[in-house]
Amino acid sequence: MQEPEDFAKRLRLLEQDRAHGASELARQALKILADNALQGAAGSVDELRALLSRRAGLLAGARPSMAPLHNLLERWQCSLGELASDDMGRFRRAAAEEALALIESSRRAVQEVASHACNQLAQGSILITHSLSSTMMEVFRQHGGKGLKAIVSESRPLNEGYNLAAEISRWGIATRLITDAQIGLFAKEADVAMVGADSLLPDGGVLNKAGTYLLALASRDLGVPFYVACESFKLRTPEMGKAELEEMDPAELKAPELPNVEVRNVYFDITPPSLITGWISERGLIREWDGRL
Amino acid sequence: MQEPEDFAKRLRLLEQDRAHGASELARQALKILADNALQGAAGSVDELRALLSRRAGLLAGARPSMAPLHNLLERWQCSLGELASDDMGRFRRAAAEEALALIESSRRAVQEVASHACNQLAQGSILITHSLSSTMMEVFRQHGGKGLKAIVSESRPLNEGYNLAAEISRWGIATRLITDAQIGLFAKEADVAMVGADSLLPDGGVLNKAGTYLLALASRDLGVPFYVACESFKLRTPEMGKAELEEMDPAELKAPELPNVEVRNVYFDITPPSLITGWISERGLIREWDGRL
Repeated sequence: MQEPEDFAKRLRLLEQDRAHGASELARQALKILADNALQGAAGSVDELRALLSRRAGLLAGARPSMAPLHNLLERWQCSLGELASDDMGRFRRAAAEEALALIESSRRAVQEVASHACNQLAQGSILITHSLSSTMMEVFRQHGGKGLKAIVSESRPLNEGYNLAAEISRWGIATRLITDAQIGLFAKEADVAMVGADSLLPDGGVLNKAGTYLLALASRDLGVPFYVACESFKLRTPEMGKAELEEMDPAELKAPELPNVEVRNVYFDITPPSLITGWISERGLIREWDGRL
Repeated sequence: MQEPEDFAKRLRLLEQDRAHGASELARQALKILADNALQGAAGSVDELRALLSRRAGLLAGARPSMAPLHNLLERWQCSLGELASDDMGRFRRAAAEEALALIESSRRAVQEVASHACNQLAQGSILITHSLSSTMMEVFRQHGGKGLKAIVSESRPLNEGYNLAAEISRWGIATRLITDAQIGLFAKEADVAMVGADSLLPDGGVLNKAGTYLLALASRDLGVPFYVACESFKLRTPEMGKAELEEMDPAELKAPELPNVEVRNVYFDITPPSLITGWISERGLIREWDGRL
């Protein structure tokens, strides 16, 4: 089925977004669905439900590496089933409100996780992180006043690390910005390594921007604790099957085009649970993985 | 003492060269000294010896992370002490010939090392490497016909990996070119990891382009053997003291300038011997480090 151009355009933007993490994109998807709930062209509640369900599927499928997109949208779809369907206008408003409530709940979860994460940081801690995560951004915001120092890797190919550095620079956080290749050199200067997550796997492994695994390896080798800070929405259930590692346009590397040379641009890697010192969720710090966040 | 502009210019080029490895730069320095031996302005053999000794020191000091520069130039200086000094013209020619002989000996060493390295590769092996090394280039040249496949990381900030890919592309070697952040993702697809070296430390650790340590960590974690291929000229002696890790202009990263953010650009890291499966020198494969190459 052909979707109208305004929806198709927002879907494309979500697919191509490299500047935001998984939670933020999940909230953007919920906002699209809230708008569609209010304005989607449908002659009956059943028709609207079908339209919203189809679009929720398209949005979740746009970023298969990002569990919160799947989880929050599925939760929203479940909530639709419980809404009274006798009045079209009321159904529209209630469906939109459910989406906005989930956005709010996702934001609150980020704040709670960050607050627990800050409990692992001392006054003046040096924290190394990789890539851009709204959860980590919130950690820097909450703990910035306590002399927190940052080591931020650029996170090729599109250098989301520069965006993180720009944001925390405004909060006066002393930051060292490094190439991804220098992660091993600078990890040993950190007290703590901490990253957000695009998805958490059922075994506790973390799917996050490519390079995270390297930071975890270096942290382990150098005796620096490596934490994953992420909301419970990010947990993939076994039913979701094997996690896909999205590959993006090789042109993003701006490498020369050469015969016999294939440029690869896999965006995510998986860090096994054995390299993770602890998981920080709304529950607080989890030192032994027990299958939930 | 002020050096003449032609020497000062060649010294600066050597200092700023990011496109060549340590052995190649050592050979370039020897060529400069051969030219200076023939043409350096001096009224006596003693004066010429002093001039050449001073310039050899300046050239070796230009790249403190690169042991072969130090070792080959020191060897050359020793050889000068043994030359007859009764005839200025003969001394000049003999000193230049010694330098050219060392260049040739360095070239031969690279070929021998590469030939031993190829013995560790099977028909159709997939080899992952990091940065640009003339020794690794020679491995690809010698083994390219045997279906060797390559995984090459870009090696930020100046992407020497692109130069390596361009060269081996011409030899028809099927190559995957990746960001440094993807090293952990692609190491598991390799049969062998192999790098050159800027210096080898007395304990067998390797000083090489930043990111090498990450490749070694990933290789160890994934069960991929990690070899260092390097000529004996690259070994640092304990007398040379602690190895310096050169830091280059942060502008090379092309990162935004931000308040509170310091851009760091350390060029080299050190991979400890515990992560190295074997060292390959002119002697062949060394499985247990015994202090020499």
